[in-house]
Amino acid sequence: MSGPDPTREVADWWATAVSRIEPGVIELRGRPVQDLIGTTTLAEMIWLLVRGDSPAPGQARLLEAALVAGVDHGPQAPSIAIARMTATCGVGLNSAMANGVNALGDVHGGAGQQCVELLNEICDRGADVPHAAREVLAEWRARSPYIPGFGHRFHPVDPRRDPLLSLVDEAVRDGVVAGRHLAAARAVEDVLTRRVPMNIDGATAVIYAELGFAPPLARGLFVLSRSVGILAHAWEETRQGRRIKGPIPPSILPTYLSQ
Amino acid sequence: MSGPDPTREVADWWATAVSRIEPGVIELRGRPVQDLIGTTTLAEMIWLLVRGDSPAPGQARLLEAALVAGVDHGPQAPSIAIARMTATCGVGLNSAMANGVNALGDVHGGAGQQCVELLNEICDRGADVPHAAREVLAEWRARSPYIPGFGHRFHPVDPRRDPLLSLVDEAVRDGVVAGRHLAAARAVEDVLTRRVPMNIDGATAVIYAELGFAPPLARGLFVLSRSVGILAHAWEETRQGRRIKGPIPPSILPTYLSQ
Amino acid sequence: MSGPDPTREVADWWATAVSRIEPGVIELRGRPVQDLIGTTTLAEMIWLLVRGDSPAPGQARLLEAALVAGVDHGPQAPSIAIARMTATCGVGLNSAMANGVNALGDVHGGAGQQCVELLNEICDRGADVPHAAREVLAEWRARSPYIPGFGHRFHPVDPRRDPLLSLVDEAVRDGVVAGRHLAAARAVEDVLTRRVPMNIDGATAVIYAELGFAPPLARGLFVLSRSVGILAHAWEETRQGRRIKGPIPPSILPTYLSQ
Amino acid sequence: MSGPDPTREVADWWATAVSRIEPGVIELRGRPVQDLIGTTTLAEMIWLLVRGDSPAPGQARLLEAALVAGVDHGPQAPSIAIARMTATCGVGLNSAMANGVNALGDVHGGAGQQCVELLNEICDRGADVPHAAREVLAEWRARSPYIPGFGHRFHPVDPRRDPLLSLVDEAVRDGVVAGRHLAAARAVEDVLTRRVPMNIDGATAVIYAELGFAPPLARGLFVLSRSVGILAHAWEETRQGRRIKGPIPPSILPTYLSQ
Repeated sequence: MSGPDPTREVADWWATAVSRIEPGVIELRGRPVQDLIGTTTLAEMIWLLVRGDSPAPGQARLLEAALVAGVDHGPQAPSIAIARMTATCGVGLNSAMANGVNALGDVHGGAGQQCVELLNEICDRGADVPHAAREVLAEWRARSPYIPGFGHRFHPVDPRRDPLLSLVDEAVRDGVVAGRHLAAARAVEDVLTRRVPMNIDGATAVIYAELGFAPPLARGLFVLSRSVGILAHAWEETRQGRRIKGPIPPSILPTYLSQ
Repeated sequence: MSGPDPTREVADWWATAVSRIEPGVIELRGRPVQDLIGTTTLAEMIWLLVRGDSPAPGQARLLEAALVAGVDHGPQAPSIAIARMTATCGVGLNSAMANGVNALGDVHGGAGQQCVELLNEICDRGADVPHAAREVLAEWRARSPYIPGFGHRFHPVDPRRDPLLSLVDEAVRDGVVAGRHLAAARAVEDVLTRRVPMNIDGATAVIYAELGFAPPLARGLFVLSRSVGILAHAWEETRQGRRIKGPIPPSILPTYLSQ
Repeated sequence: MSGPDPTREVADWWATAVSRIEPGVIELRGRPVQDLIGTTTLAEMIWLLVRGDSPAPGQARLLEAALVAGVDHGPQAPSIAIARMTATCGVGLNSAMANGVNALGDVHGGAGQQCVELLNEICDRGADVPHAAREVLAEWRARSPYIPGFGHRFHPVDPRRDPLLSLVDEAVRDGVVAGRHLAAARAVEDVLTRRVPMNIDGATAVIYAELGFAPPLARGLFVLSRSVGILAHAWEETRQGRRIKGPIPPSILPTYLSQ
Repeated sequence: MSGPDPTREVADWWATAVSRIEPGVIELRGRPVQDLIGTTTLAEMIWLLVRGDSPAPGQARLLEAALVAGVDHGPQAPSIAIARMTATCGVGLNSAMANGVNALGDVHGGAGQQCVELLNEICDRGADVPHAAREVLAEWRARSPYIPGFGHRFHPVDPRRDPLLSLVDEAVRDGVVAGRHLAAARAVEDVLTRRVPMNIDGATAVIYAELGFAPPLARGLFVLSRSVGILAHAWEETRQGRRIKGPIPPSILPTYLSQ
């Protein structure tokens, strides 16, 4: 037998602080699950599992608002269309959802992640926020024409921006968050001359950054949020009875094929 | 050009009652998103998007408890281990989550779906619930040794069972739900002589069935729930710095390979 | 430490006859990989890894023809459209491919699996093949209007049917395969009065069944085959420079949204 | 109706040069599929669909060798373990395969992609190959300790290296490929003083680069290759009858849980 204790090696290999499971015991971040059921909201549970501690009520409210805001954007979004089509191919709802989630990559679901990075950079650049915003934006624009969190292919003004930023303003007033990332985001909007307004990724990035979530978690939390719409759409598609649904309506397919 | 209006064909092909999106407008089941942000919990949003209407407070509480209860069961669960390993392979968090969700198939995440079907069958079998339970169980056991929702590989008693069933008892007392599926599930436990106690899939199936969710949605809702643990674990794994993590600790791998 | 040898337990848990890997050693089904490189075709390797032995030349030719035949069916197929869209969302090619493959479920990629089951049932039903075909078809039609392997939404005659069946005829003449599943499939066509001709799933199912592959492998092999088209399409899409590609062309999206 | 012809918009949106599908017609890169079945190998088909033309015999042989070489590396590889575990969770083989493929990310399957980029950089750096190799390696090492294509966690010498490089040497002699990327890779080995020998990603990267495949296709082709092992392993796992297989053998699980 090998030198090290193999069972301890396996234990270390799968060590986790997220939960402890033993026969009859389920502790989530040290809290017995039976104490959490019925006393904890889903948003509070998300915070607890991901962060390891319990959020203050104001923090939980902000997180919940961000999660609620991002749940859906209709079938023109590939994550939604993909989940709908997959649902017609004879797989379980979980696989239709998996396909939708898998499409929330760097430019679809990852924009929030990159926006948190952008806001963090601005906050770290110094006390003069407008100056920091101009500098950092110039560096980002040298790399890509797309500024994550700003602009939207559909909405001249994203209807989710104002309600979310209002909640952040309140949270600043209540001392729940500091407001630095909010200021950074508004400075970016000013630099972009409001022609490229903050979108859902930007508004939620403000919230996630203010709450101290690391950038990749902006993507992870957006995934939880968008999973709700993905489920609703995949489920609705299964009720509509189509099989092997492709992107082109059958009625115009012959014309398309013959062109 | 073709006979039918192609744009209308496309519109019908992607028709949905879940949301309506236009420039500047996002309506979720007819409700402007700006009215929902800050006023709606995530659990209420899940109900709204999936069901199309707003839940009563008691219904939302039950749904939230079920969602909270199922969030994690540690790395011995394949959905969790798979997400953790995928997270070390150089993909975004969304893809690690997608892989975990994709594994919530018929026997892992689908047990809740099948348990709702079981409970529905018992409820439809007649007023004598113990008799119905015995009959239906006999039919199910002829097909498979596994009764979905009952028994657990780890827990002699699942610590999530009692808190969840207590909440259902309260909901029955408050007239929020009828209690028929709860009675069916208890009758199953009696038939199985409590040696095969109700597990998390069974307890949440009671809730989803009492709330009127179709069986596949028991799986879909479990996916939303378990996605929280999947995210927490995938995120934790990325912080631990392993690359291309396989199932066997490197320190015992040479011994394993040479056997 | 525990009673059983934990390292042995781990070894058994991950035991496989497919390959043996040790430092400096890679054996695939007992064959050193260095002996296979340059001497073995991809089709022969597929057979070797999945089946455990080496195919006769005639068997390998049939397998290869079936794999080649199924590689693509254009973007109207959801597996292809899904892969293309995913490729625009900022994920690696592997994730775009994974999404396409994940959509090859029971009714999209699984039709070949079910057709092998159908052909096997007919072959097992007795020596009178036309009679067996009528009987088995009647049973299948009682369960579903779709007969797997027959009919096609686009092709009055599938251009892949004849070349594949010709190869099977040759293989029968050469004594490579017995021809019973081929006879069964032709009998099904006769019962369906040729109005529902054999499609690619049917023709490849004939080949996989004649070669002795279990039904689920008909799906697995179709996945390998269709992965080629999935890759080609996902790659092409990345060259076309679209971002976050949904199912509706942007130019008609405003009209669609306002309907 | 809108200004632009919607059907043409849809046609353009899904335009592809990979295949043309019409009722009764399937052309792959302009070649009728019935002409390809039985006359084209799978490797030739992969080249045709991805590249758009037909490979010379020597090119096809090299491609096939690279594809054959990468098919498997056993269950310690996460792509294989993930596929095996997923296969026990009640999903179709395609979903087990999708999960394995999805894990072939930047550091697991993407190493070949990055190695092609590395070799291309060296080839572009000037005629003095050893000098170019030292320069480029220094730049890459400044960014990461890992040099893609070199070193292996298990193999002091990768048994696939020599047979693959021999085939490339032959191909250079036969004028099939130029040999510049081969020289670059050997120069890298020299700089790394052979303590970090070329691995499978490196050897196949040499082949893919010599054959003119763009870097992301090195990952895509590795996906096709590794899909073979993923299928074989997922299939074998389903035959072993485990349900909901996690990473820890049940027999040592109690000891693990109680630590």
